[in-house]
This record gives sequence, C-alpha cells and structure tokens, in this order.
Amino acid sequence: MSGREQIGVVVVGCGTVGGATAQILTLQADKLARRVGVAPALRAIVDVDFTHAKELGLDENLFCTDLDAAIEADDVQIVVELVGGTTVAKAIVERAIAAGKHVVTANKALLAHHGAELLAAARLRETVIAFEASCAGAIPIISALTGELACDRIDAMYGIVNGTCNYILTAMTEHDRTYAEALAVAQAGGLAEADPTLDVTGVDSAHKLTIMADLAFRRRTRFEKIYVEGIDQLEVQDINYGKELGYVVKLLAIARRQETGLSLRVHPAFISTRHPLAWVSGPFNAVSVYGENSGHTMYYGRGAGDRPTAAAVIGDIASVALGNAQRQFQTLNIWPDRREDADQLDIEAVRCRYYLRLQAEDHPGVFARIANILGDNDISISSLLQHEPLTETDESVPVVITTHEAMESNIRAAVDEMNHLDVIKQPCVCIHMVAEHPEQTGTRDWGLGTRLNAE
Amino acid sequence: MSGREQIGVVVVGCGTVGGATAQILTLQADKLARRVGVAPALRAIVDVDFTHAKELGLDENLFCTDLDAAIEADDVQIVVELVGGTTVAKAIVERAIAAGKHVVTANKALLAHHGAELLAAARLRETVIAFEASCAGAIPIISALTGELACDRIDAMYGIVNGTCNYILTAMTEHDRTYAEALAVAQAGGLAEADPTLDVTGVDSAHKLTIMADLAFRRRTRFEKIYVEGIDQLEVQDINYGKELGYVVKLLAIARRQETGLSLRVHPAFISTRHPLAWVSGPFNAVSVYGENSGHTMYYGRGAGDRPTAAAVIGDIASVALGNAQRQFQTLNIWPDRREDADQLDIEAVRCRYYLRLQAEDHPGVFARIANILGDNDISISSLLQHEPLTETDESVPVVITTHEAMESNIRAAVDEMNHLDVIKQPCVCIHMVAEHPEQTGTRDWGLGTRLNAE
Repeated sequence: MSGREQIGVVVVGCGTVGGATAQILTLQADKLARRVGVAPALRAIVDVDFTHAKELGLDENLFCTDLDAAIEADDVQIVVELVGGTTVAKAIVERAIAAGKHVVTANKALLAHHGAELLAAARLRETVIAFEASCAGAIPIISALTGELACDRIDAMYGIVNGTCNYILTAMTEHDRTYAEALAVAQAGGLAEADPTLDVTGVDSAHKLTIMADLAFRRRTRFEKIYVEGIDQLEVQDINYGKELGYVVKLLAIARRQETGLSLRVHPAFISTRHPLAWVSGPFNAVSVYGENSGHTMYYGRGAGDRPTAAAVIGDIASVALGNAQRQFQTLNIWPDRREDADQLDIEAVRCRYYLRLQAEDHPGVFARIANILGDNDISISSLLQHEPLTETDESVPVVITTHEAMESNIRAAVDEMNHLDVIKQPCVCIHMVAEHPEQTGTRDWGLGTRLNAE
Repeated sequence: MSGREQIGVVVVGCGTVGGATAQILTLQADKLARRVGVAPALRAIVDVDFTHAKELGLDENLFCTDLDAAIEADDVQIVVELVGGTTVAKAIVERAIAAGKHVVTANKALLAHHGAELLAAARLRETVIAFEASCAGAIPIISALTGELACDRIDAMYGIVNGTCNYILTAMTEHDRTYAEALAVAQAGGLAEADPTLDVTGVDSAHKLTIMADLAFRRRTRFEKIYVEGIDQLEVQDINYGKELGYVVKLLAIARRQETGLSLRVHPAFISTRHPLAWVSGPFNAVSVYGENSGHTMYYGRGAGDRPTAAAVIGDIASVALGNAQRQFQTLNIWPDRREDADQLDIEAVRCRYYLRLQAEDHPGVFARIANILGDNDISISSLLQHEPLTETDESVPVVITTHEAMESNIRAAVDEMNHLDVIKQPCVCIHMVAEHPEQTGTRDWGLGTRLNAE
C-alpha cells in the first residue's frame, strides 16, 4: 500500500472507544493520510443503538445495523471490534475472519479466553488480528513486545495495567482514604464502573497479563492458571506501615521466570519507592520489562479513556494498512497459536518477598515464638517494625515483618501456624512484596543459566 | 523473508556497542532465529584494531580490515555502522548505500548533521537507514515515533537523553555533590568520558533531539538552530532551593509547538517532582511525549551501555530482515529528507517558566524595585522564597522567584536590568522551568487550534 491508497474500515460497537475511533477516522483522515501515506476510509459504524454516535455528531449515513453486510462489503478490509465481552464479540471476529478481513480489537477478555483459537483461524485465512489497544490503552506495549523486545529474552515483566485500581490505590496512599471511600470517589469521577468487580478483583489485569506474557515469553499461557488477588481487602494501616518502610502498594500483573517455571500472577504488592512503577499514580498505567540485553525498560501512559485507546486502535489500522502487522504475524514465532504451553507455576511454588502484620500480645517471649515459626518454615526476616503501644491499656500491638525471598507454600504454612497461636489476636495480614528485578546488563553474564524450556 | 532465511551482517567498528552487537549475533543467533523467524549471520567484523574484539573472544576468522570488500560481499545485506563521529562514519554509510546495502547505525552526531542527505541517498538506492540505537539506547523511542505516534499529532516532547548528565545531576541532587565532584565520580565509574564536553554541554542531547523532532513533527529541523545550554554552571544551592519548591533539575531536550512555531532547545530545567521525568535517576533515560489523542506517554530505559544499545541495533537488524523498516521508510511521510523545514523559533521567542535567584541587599524597598522590573517586562511572579539571613552580619540574602510563563526575551531584559541594580550583589541566576504539558485527552477539544504549518 503506497501513496494515498484507501483502506476501508468498519467500526463495530460505537461506545466510548468506538465513538472516538469513528470520530478520529472522520475528522483526521486527511491528516492520517498525509502522515502515514495511507488513507483509512470509514465505511460503516455498526451498532444496535446510535445514541452516543449521534451525540458525537458522526455521519448518520454510516450508521448500520446489518453486521454481515457491513463486514462483507468489498470495499472493507479492516473490521474494528469494539463491542467488548466474549460472546457477541467472538462471533463478530470469527465472522470477519471468515470473510477474509483483518481485525483490530481492544478486547482483552476475548483474547485472554480465545486468543490462540482466533489467531489460528486468522492465520488459516491469511488475515491478521491486531490488538495493541487491548493492553494498557495508549501505551505501545504490544508493539514493543513484537518489536525490539521480541529479539531479546524477557526475564520478567511487571505491569500496572488497570487504571481504576491504580486510581483507588493512589487515593488510599496519598489521601488516606479507605478502600470503600476511594472506590466511591473513583465511581463519582467516572474512573470506576458502577459494578467494579472485573477491575478491583484483578481479573481485568489478568486478562492483559496473559496476552502480554504470551508474546514476551513465547509460550502459550493459560488465563485460568493465573493467580489473581484483588485490592478490595487492603487496609489503610498496612499502606501506611509500608510507607514507613519505603514501599508503595500497587496492583501488579507479574510474569517472571523462575528456575522451575514461569510465575504468572496478579496481586497487590509493595514495591520500593525507588522503583519507577511506584511513581505511577492516578489512572495512569505502566509496564516494566526486564530483558537480557535491553535491561529495564518501562512504558507509561493512559491505560484507558476514549481517545488514548482509540489512538492505539488507529495505530493498528495503520500497521495493517502498511502490511507490518501481517508480516510480524506471519514471521515472528511469538504468537500463542504457534507455541507450546508455558510451565506455569502454581502460586504455592512462587518465590517472593512478603509483608506480614500480626496483632500480637505485648509480653515477653511472644516474638521468639513468631521468629521460631518463621525459621522453621525456612523464612528469613528482612526488617521488623514494632511501635510502642498507643496507650497503656493496649494489650496487643501490631508487629510488621518483611521477609527475604521465600516460597509461598512456606509462607502460607507459617501464617497458618501463627494464626493458631493464642498470643495472636487477629488473622495475620500477608501482602506480597516485589524486589527490584536484577538486570544483567552491567555484567558479562551472558545469561546461560536459567532458561524456560527451549528458550 | 520467512522461515530460517539468513541475512548477512557486517559490523563496522568493534568498540563497546560493536563488540556487544557482534557477541549477541554470535552467541544468540539461533535464539534470534527461533524468535523472529530470521537468522542474521555475522559475515565480518571490520576495524583497524582488534584488541577489544579479542578480549570478547569473538571469532578471529571474522576480523577484517578491508572495509570495501566486507561491504560489497554478495552475502551481506546489512552494514552496521558503529564507528561514531561524522567523517569516517559518513564515508562508511555512503559506501554501504552506494553498494545497495541497508544500514543500521547508532550514530546520532552523523544523523543530526547529515541525516536528511543520507536518507535521501538511501531512498534513491532503495535501501534503508535504521537508527533506533541513535537515540536513548534500549528505549524504543524511534519505533514509537514511527509506529503508533506517527498516527497522532505530537504537541510536545521532553527527553532525558544523556545518561552522563543525568547521573551527574542525580549525584548533585541526592548526594549534595558539586558539579565538579559529581563529574569526577561519574568519570571514575565509567559513566563519563575523560573529555565529557559533548555530554555536559548538551550537544549530544541536541543531536538526539533533532533526530526525534524530525519524526515527531514531520518537519526537517536544523541542529544548528537548537538552543543548547549545558549543566556545567549549575550550583548546588539552586538545586536545593528548587527542591524546597517541589522541583528537580534535569537536562531536558525539549521540542514543543508554540503558536508561532516550533521551540527546540536543550537546557537544564526544573521539573515538578510530580512529573514522571523527575523520577528518572542515575544513568537512565526517558522521553515524555504528548500526543493529541494518545495523551502523555513516557518511554524509560538505559540510554547507553554495551548490551542495551546493542539490543536496539539487533532490533533494527530484525526490522530490516522482516522488511518493516523498508516499508515504513518508503511509506511514512515523516522522514526529514521528504519534508520542508520546520519554523524553528529563536530562543528569544520561546515562552517558558523561569527560576530566578538574586543576591539582594536586605533592606526596605529592594523587593519593590525587583517586582517593578519584572512587571514592566510583562513577567508575573508565581512564587517567592526568601529565608531569614543566616547571621546578623549578612548584608544580602538570596531571593528566589519563580515566574509564570513569560517570553525569554522579556526575562533576559529583566535579568539585565536587575543585574544593573546597586542592591543586587551577584549576577542573577536564571534557570528554565517546565510546567506539566496540558493533555487534551480528557476534553472534547479536537485540537483545531494551534497547528504547525500544514500539520
């Protein structure tokens, strides 16, 4: 495709992102053509309700309720799926592929559950599915993982990929709000859904994690096997103790090579205030990637919102128009439909640092009992925080312990034992901690150690 | 190019980056082939001195002193220029292009001075010059600017693109070192050259700025017209006053649309501690980009070093092998050899915020005289910091003033007037400040206002 050739686009689903995409394709088509040498032509906007489309002032001649006709039109080469969900959206994508059309989608749930299958179908029909917008909105993380990073061995990836959670955690951390208060503020500001379950439970982050990890580790990862823990149980006092120790809590999507396999998990985690991810606040997203040669790179930006997400959709349309998306899809051996399953570790086998808070009776010998349990479970203490009781009548005091790296199964066993001690007054609070991932760039270590399967 | 086809590569210049590139191509060629479906084959390492190459244990059969023979070999498709400088390197690139070979280079000085000319030559011969490694090492900023961001209108770009300077400024800020002390530490640690001029004067950052701005603003920018100010005059007391006001000093490479044209400049600047660029410490680099649709995105990583820079070179080799680099070079209308000159603003016409420090006599009426001068020059005060004199015998005190956005010519006039006041005891210190660039993503403003020429 060269000069000012046109490429026909159908937008299916005219909500927040679909509306912005249609608007950019309408108002900025000429500019786009001047810049990238390809003119995307919006042929139809498919939906069942055009209220939002009308509000945006989109061309009513493009409104269309006949999905099949829109997709199958000869002058359409790209179908943009922005319906969301995993049922109707799946049918739309399958229909588009069957008609030999390229697909651009922002649908992380669809790809997390059916990605490999849909990519395989696209491969058979010699079309492509481009999905930059599915992970972290305007951040070109898919492009990075399929570009320069595809040439490197990725050792670990840590992502803040849910803006709702990050907004809530920022409000809890910086403004001392409880989880419930922060959620209410987020909902009032349009930064959380009326039903925030998918976000706050970590499921949305896990959707994105499986998509990114497939590309980064060149293995097919399974969404169902990802350990997922949300932010809804976090207490402000733990956030404050963490602060005192130099840590900030974030909901992290983590993929990390261990000697025994690949650890994939989503959970709140304390991260050092010196790590760049700790600074990502409000609705912003960021993904830190540790490559064998490239070292630590981080990608930061708006993870959601109409125009930032639409910008990623438009980028994919251009990439398909240029043929780059197709070429990468055909040549790079990083796509999940082409790869074996990853050795995904059970959460019990994960090695991590931990923050523990115990409400313990304040008399001699108590700490020795705690320390013995930790030692017996092969857990080594990194730091300890115990303030004096607030009043003389306080019979128990919070004891905060951070550990060196330990096995999750050992931590769970130790916590269980401690919870059974008569001197422990409340169930132990346990929060994961993330240590700065070591970079190998400064050494002459060529990374001939740990390998994941044949990689 | 598909399957396990080979693409022949010659590395010219076996220094830090060249050595690492040759080593990756030697030790990791199979892995690369498995990942990206293309096997780069190292055909020759060209240099005049092979001491470093031998230290790395590279294959002596590949050592070659005959540049022409190496370039012209039929089984070579890519020439990697890692010699540096603008004379020999230019001849090498011209020779490679004349021989119909693709070029991958990390040479920012060469591209800043002769980029458009060399790109035009490559276009004529239907080859491509790929230069991801020329700007900010492992950070895929060129890829971002030629990918998703090429579809957006960029309003501003702020880069920390010199690791030596950032390391020195971090040492001054976090460890209270003077410039001279911090430089000595950097030199001892291998993070600054014995002759650090190119880095600390800002020239290296300006080289990178012109390369990035060409792509971002789709205009040909001129290196010679960039205002450049280094870090070697900075004093610790100003860094500390800035801290007190909530700012950190960074050497920033700035490109920003103003109503009247494009402002391109490199200078130390105070940036709010709430801006992500403020957190970039030590030798790391980062580039913040503000797009009309994408909003604020930031790209962070190692800006120098053997393997991080080699990772960018390898990424370019893969992109050329896949054909993506060629396709982008042919189609995207963002290359400087295809574009008109930018309206580059003279520094006097730049609008910016400013930090001013005056050593003023401590008696009535002095501040009124300063305030009058600022007011007369259309400069509005944003904040003021004056501590009590340290001792009773202090006859003058430092007065720190931050301004709202003002015209540089007005600031210069005001500073000149103030320096002539009898109550001002030392020349006024003036440091640029950078305000958070506004994003338009949250509004329905479709950016129909400010435009740069036809963009």
